[in-house]
Parts: sequence; C-alpha cells; structure tokens
Amino acid sequence: LAQALTDVATLTQGVLAGDVRAVARAITLVENDAPDAGTLLRALFPHPGHALVIGVTGPAGAGKSTLVDRLTAALRHQGRTVGVVAVDPSSPYSGGAILGDRVRMQAHALDPGVFIRSMATRGHLGGLAAATDDVLAVLAAAGRDVLLVETVGVGQDEVDVIATADVSVVVLVPGLGDEVQALKAGIMEIADVFVVNKADRDGAAQLVDEIQSLVALASQDARRPEIVQTVALRDEGTAVLLAAIETCRLDIETTGRLAEKRRTRIERQFERALHARLWRHAREHISEAERETILARLLRREQDPAGAADEVLKRMGL
Amino acid sequence: LAQALTDVATLTQGVLAGDVRAVARAITLVENDAPDAGTLLRALFPHPGHALVIGVTGPAGAGKSTLVDRLTAALRHQGRTVGVVAVDPSSPYSGGAILGDRVRMQAHALDPGVFIRSMATRGHLGGLAAATDDVLAVLAAAGRDVLLVETVGVGQDEVDVIATADVSVVVLVPGLGDEVQALKAGIMEIADVFVVNKADRDGAAQLVDEIQSLVALASQDARRPEIVQTVALRDEGTAVLLAAIETCRLDIETTGRLAEKRRTRIERQFERALHARLWRHAREHISEAERETILARLLRREQDPAGAADEVLKRMGL
Repeated sequence: LAQALTDVATLTQGVLAGDVRAVARAITLVENDAPDAGTLLRALFPHPGHALVIGVTGPAGAGKSTLVDRLTAALRHQGRTVGVVAVDPSSPYSGGAILGDRVRMQAHALDPGVFIRSMATRGHLGGLAAATDDVLAVLAAAGRDVLLVETVGVGQDEVDVIATADVSVVVLVPGLGDEVQALKAGIMEIADVFVVNKADRDGAAQLVDEIQSLVALASQDARRPEIVQTVALRDEGTAVLLAAIETCRLDIETTGRLAEKRRTRIERQFERALHARLWRHAREHISEAERETILARLLRREQDPAGAADEVLKRMGL
Repeated sequence: LAQALTDVATLTQGVLAGDVRAVARAITLVENDAPDAGTLLRALFPHPGHALVIGVTGPAGAGKSTLVDRLTAALRHQGRTVGVVAVDPSSPYSGGAILGDRVRMQAHALDPGVFIRSMATRGHLGGLAAATDDVLAVLAAAGRDVLLVETVGVGQDEVDVIATADVSVVVLVPGLGDEVQALKAGIMEIADVFVVNKADRDGAAQLVDEIQSLVALASQDARRPEIVQTVALRDEGTAVLLAAIETCRLDIETTGRLAEKRRTRIERQFERALHARLWRHAREHISEAERETILARLLRREQDPAGAADEVLKRMGL
C-alpha cells in the first residue's frame, strides 16, 4: 500500500508538472477505474487548472474530427497547449471505421503540446459522463490551455458532457436530410455556437436560415448562438470559429452561464460519487445467492420489484 | 387515503378487465409518476398477462411508424389485440414533426382492439426505460395479445428497452449513407430480426448483403437473425415479417434467450426500484441548504466530490 501511495503521489506530481507520460498513465488509470484512480483524482482535485473546455458534437459525417483537427492546429499556432478527448460509440462494428478518423490527428502526434485520447463509451449508467469528466480533470490539472471534447451526440450521457462544456459547439452539414436533422434536435438547444461545415455544398445557406429560425424560436431573451460557416477540409473558417468561441466564452462569463455550467459539472461529479457509494453499499447487503433468490421470486411473481427493494433497504438499516 | 385506495382498486379492476378508459387513466398515472402509480403497479404485478412484446427500432426516416402501422393491421386481421407504445425523443423542436407520423395510426383510432400511446423520453437517468416498462406492464395486465414498442434507438435507455423486448426488430433502409449506418451499429447486435424497409429502392440488395456480413461476423454459434425485406408504404412484406417474428419467438423460447430477456427486464425493474429508494433516502439526509453548502465547498475546491459523498453516507449511518 505504501508503495502504491508513493506511486500515486509521483504520478500526481508528474501530472501537475504537465509531464505527458504521467498524464497518459493517469488517464489510463482513470479510464479503467483502477483502485488508485480515486486517490489520484482526489489529489488532483485542488488543482483545477485554467483550461477552456470546448465541447463539439453533431451527427456522424458532419466532419467533427477534421474540424477538431483544424481547431487544434489554430490553437497551437497561438501557442496554446491542447488536449483532445474523442468519445466513440461503443460498438464492435463501427470501432474501426471511426477510429480511422483519428489517424488524421496524427499530424500532431509528435507535438507534446497536443494530447489526444480516444475513449470508448461505457455501457453502464453515467459511465461515459463520469469517465470523460475524470479525464478532463486530469488534463486540466496538467495545465492544458484548451480541452476539446468530441462526441457523436447520441445518448443523454454524451449530450450532458457537451452541454456542460464551457462552450458547446454543434456541427451540422447541408444535405443530411430533414429527418436526420430532426433526430439531432435534442442537441440543438445546448449549442452556444453552431457550425455549418462543408459550407461549400448546396444547401448551406438554407441550413443557416433553418438554424436561424430555430434559434429565434427558442431563445427569447437569452444570448443567441452565433452561426459560423466552415469548410474544415480546406481549413476555411477555422479562425472565425475560434473567434466566435472566444467571444461566446466572454459573453457567457458575463451572463453567469459559464458558472452555471461549471456548477452542473461538479454537481454531476458529486451525485455520481454518492450514487456509486450507495450502490456499493446495497450490493454489500445482497450476496449473489440472495440476489438470485430475489430474482426467482420476482419471476414467479411472488413479490414485486418495489417490495423486494424495500426488503433490501430494511437489511441496510435504512 | 381510503378513497384513493378505492380508486386505485377500481382502476386495477378496470385494467384487469381490459377496459380501455381504465388503461388510459392507468398509463397517465404511471407516466406522471403520480403518488398512486406505485400502488397500482404493485396490484397489477401478479398479473403479467400473456403479451408478446415486439421492440422496433432504427434510424429516423426508416419508416418504423408505417411498419408498426402495417403490423398492427395484420395482427388485428388475425384477431389479436394490440398495444402500441411509441417513444419520441424529447425535443422542443422535433416534437411536432415526429408526432405528425402518429396521425397515420389514427386509422385504428376507432378500434378498441388497438391501444396507442406516444411517450416523451424523460431527461433523467433510467427514466425512459422505467416509464416504458411500467406502461408495458399496464398493457400486458390488460390482456393485450401483442405489444409493439417503437423507438428511434438513440441513447442507451432506448436500446435497453428494445433489447429486452421479447423479439427485437431493427429497421434499416437503403441509402442512408455508410456513416449513418455505422452510427447505428450500436443497435445492430440486439437484433433478432432485421428489416430492410423501402426495399424497392436502389441499394436494397447491397444493404441485405452488408447486414449478412455483419451478422456472420458477430454470431458464431448463436441464432442468426433473419433479414426481411419490406415496402411498408405499399404493405409489402408485412406477412413475411410477422411470420419471421413468430418463428423467432419460438426459436428464442427454445434456446432460453426469451427467458433471459424477461429476466433482464425484471432485474432492471428491481434495480430501478432499489435505486429510487436509495436516492430518496440520500436526499432526505441532505436538505436543500446543505446541498448548497456542499456545492459551494466543491466549487471552492475545499472538498472533493468523493469526500462530500462519504460525508453524506456517514450521516445516513452507512
């Protein structure tokens, strides 16, 4: 144990010093929910860093990865260090195809000022948001200037992650069809900045109009999200987008929206910690055999789920 | 209270008698998490009915609603009663557009043998799966022969609901693009039956081939899902699809997969009940003022989320 604690202490110091290898090890620890992960996160907690967290989401095929790549290059050009966290849907099939996109990011592979990590979404409740929050905490503690989080925006978990980024960017493209756009409507209201990517395609102006109508409909008094047109493949519009993000950051700092987002983020971390502990306690009060007995009774309809849960709580002394 | 209990007792009897108005009232109660909902579900629990639960999912624009409409008509033709539960993504924008689809189902509006309910997805964890399970329980207790659950398949919640239906049907269409299909890969492995809808379109044969390759890749020993081609708009392939579903039901009954799905469904209900109770207890031990104090300390980085959670547990006597 003493050895383990020393290791975590060394790792903590490495992360705080911004050492890339320490950051990589720390993230692996956190992603795998390793026993030391809690100790590490606790040690890093008093060091929130100063990172601006930018969330990027949108449908598959919108060109998010390319856009993130361009933003990374532009930020590096400004001399700012970057962390990229790409969240991939957990699928035995799509893994390869989507990871292929990441290859492009290898332009930055030799630059210690860019740290890139692809994460798989976890199956269990709150798993993805939890893991992503923790990885962002490590990168922020390591002193990164800007953190880019990219997801495909399916699932409440992913939406939560992007919604509570400091600045939430939603990427759309012309010609994905009305229904696909409708499907993505759930993420429309979280946007601080809209990007119409592949803006050289037919229908770009129309898409901008559509977004403008949606925005006018939704936000009565609130700040209206800016709409930026880009052609990420040709690196067009990147500077404008970055400027829009900076302007937005200043705006939401003034309106209190930034503080609100950060509050929601930390509230989520607290609730998750509480939830994990409650669940662990409950599990400790039901052995595997007892659990089987409970399920058998439920399946025979001899007891209902609420009644079974009440019994477990009684056993826990609650 | 006595009056309320009598009301719930009357409602329970109405549901068990298959009275459509009682069913509608019971579902509203359950959807709104009304105080009596727990009592009602408890009273209904010993009456699981005999319903076959069919889950239908797939990307927006795949024609799921039309397909469900056709299946409903075919089932009614066989003299079987039907319940349809359509889960719509919760969005202030898309609501109208997607609900518009439901209008088609009004062909069955005057048929008491068809009960249709559109549900909004809830924002909170487990909310959708919970609400859908409860609504299905009401419809099953009311003696419906077949229950059709339709979702757009975004989000783990929705995937869980479909995956634990007795028979899970995944609907795809030609020409949605590789990337959209890749996005949906997360739901590919839950399919008991694949439908290639709009099979009169170019690319239908190719899509069937692609699905076949995926299926061959994934299922080594397991039963390979059947692939059915339909043109729902013209009611082509409906009978074949229904036959495939019935065959599948018999197959998975033999292999034990059906029992496993039903077990997972009831396990989820038990865990949800346990979770809700634990959470309620935790909330009772933190007043709103204390919660604010905790959050303020977290935001000032004076305490970390894990430490704050430990304190709450101590206060709960755990």
